[in-house]
Amino acid sequence: MLFRQFFDSDSNTYTYLLASKPGRPCFIIDPVRHQTSQYLAAIDQLDLQLVHAIDTHTHADHVTGLGALRDATGCSTIMGEYTRAECVSTRVRDGGRLTLDNLTLEALYTPGHTNESFSFILFAAESPNAVFTGDVLLIRGTGRTDFQGGNPGKSWDSIVNRLFLLPKETLVYPAHDYKGWTCSSIGEEQSYNPRVSGKTREQYIEIMRDLRLPDPRMMDIAIPANLACGQNGEAGSVT
Amino acid sequence: MLFRQFFDSDSNTYTYLLASKPGRPCFIIDPVRHQTSQYLAAIDQLDLQLVHAIDTHTHADHVTGLGALRDATGCSTIMGEYTRAECVSTRVRDGGRLTLDNLTLEALYTPGHTNESFSFILFAAESPNAVFTGDVLLIRGTGRTDFQGGNPGKSWDSIVNRLFLLPKETLVYPAHDYKGWTCSSIGEEQSYNPRVSGKTREQYIEIMRDLRLPDPRMMDIAIPANLACGQNGEAGSVT
Repeated sequence: MLFRQFFDSDSNTYTYLLASKPGRPCFIIDPVRHQTSQYLAAIDQLDLQLVHAIDTHTHADHVTGLGALRDATGCSTIMGEYTRAECVSTRVRDGGRLTLDNLTLEALYTPGHTNESFSFILFAAESPNAVFTGDVLLIRGTGRTDFQGGNPGKSWDSIVNRLFLLPKETLVYPAHDYKGWTCSSIGEEQSYNPRVSGKTREQYIEIMRDLRLPDPRMMDIAIPANLACGQNGEAGSVT
Repeated sequence: MLFRQFFDSDSNTYTYLLASKPGRPCFIIDPVRHQTSQYLAAIDQLDLQLVHAIDTHTHADHVTGLGALRDATGCSTIMGEYTRAECVSTRVRDGGRLTLDNLTLEALYTPGHTNESFSFILFAAESPNAVFTGDVLLIRGTGRTDFQGGNPGKSWDSIVNRLFLLPKETLVYPAHDYKGWTCSSIGEEQSYNPRVSGKTREQYIEIMRDLRLPDPRMMDIAIPANLACGQNGEAGSVT
């Protein structure tokens, strides 16, 4: 498998490029708009054809690259079925599958960070399975639950009753990390995620309600821009 | 294989943790001192035993974690045979091998960024081969050659006549990246590294001589500290 993880240091976002091998069709997950030229360079140099560009959810901290990638490559733009973004070309349902060569991504509805967040489970021949968790499950952390339909109880249910049912060795690739970790596994997060491990659902809800985080710096710009796949007028000034 | 890449955003350094699987002995390559607690947390949580801590060369932009990891775990501290760091416990020669379970690292002398830089080729059962190139070969770039015995001609020879002889599909993991790329391959660097691809040795020497970069911010502190495995008095104030 060809697997490339990119890091946007402005928003601490991870973006993932996946294909069976060079020269073949590829997926991209959670692209950042001002990094589009980097992704296109990698796609060109690896002789890939971008078929599916996916956002796990409507991001509040950066502008998505979905629209720019669609315009540059003609790729489909994909989100979960509950997104309010009218611009996406394909809405996947829970259990829906996208396949390119021997790679399959299965959509898993995991609300909590937002009410429309999906994770995507990767099944790849001869590689360990992985899951792209967006912002619902982070490495030794979880995504905030205080806006965009976020709900700490639903976050707990998505993490504990959906993601944690995956095999322990499943690799976890989130949309963000803030301390330099690039990967985890379901087993590690079950044992060592300080917000979840050894906690009850009620304790988790209390932890999340007590966070009292400031709004993301770019929220007022990013959310409307992302509902237009990163391409509405307001987004013009966001780089 | 258990493979973890860590990123230190202060110095844009990549550090690598390698083992056959959880519960087994592990290598660490190019650790950063102020991230030691993160590495120790991962080592503990993955139930690893740190056996070999390796620096590819004497870094000038961050303080090594070799000494701190040795003190915490009793691991060996390893560099190439030409290092001036008296504190290392094992000096590897060109072609020397270190093996833990089914993982073998083979030392490859690749001077040019410094006169004592080694790369380490990873041979791992059931995983693609990889090479940890330190600062001599970066992703679509190369390490500066203007101090610590750096030499652009030797850098060219190390890259073109040593690293580029590895199979094209060998994954390239450098000690740094400044634009958010986490991985490359030998074939990609042969084709798309702008300093090397389509260039002659003479053109490369001219490119490197014309860079005229400022000294690294931490050079005066980091180099003496690193010659003491990150543990001399001067390094006390470096965090």
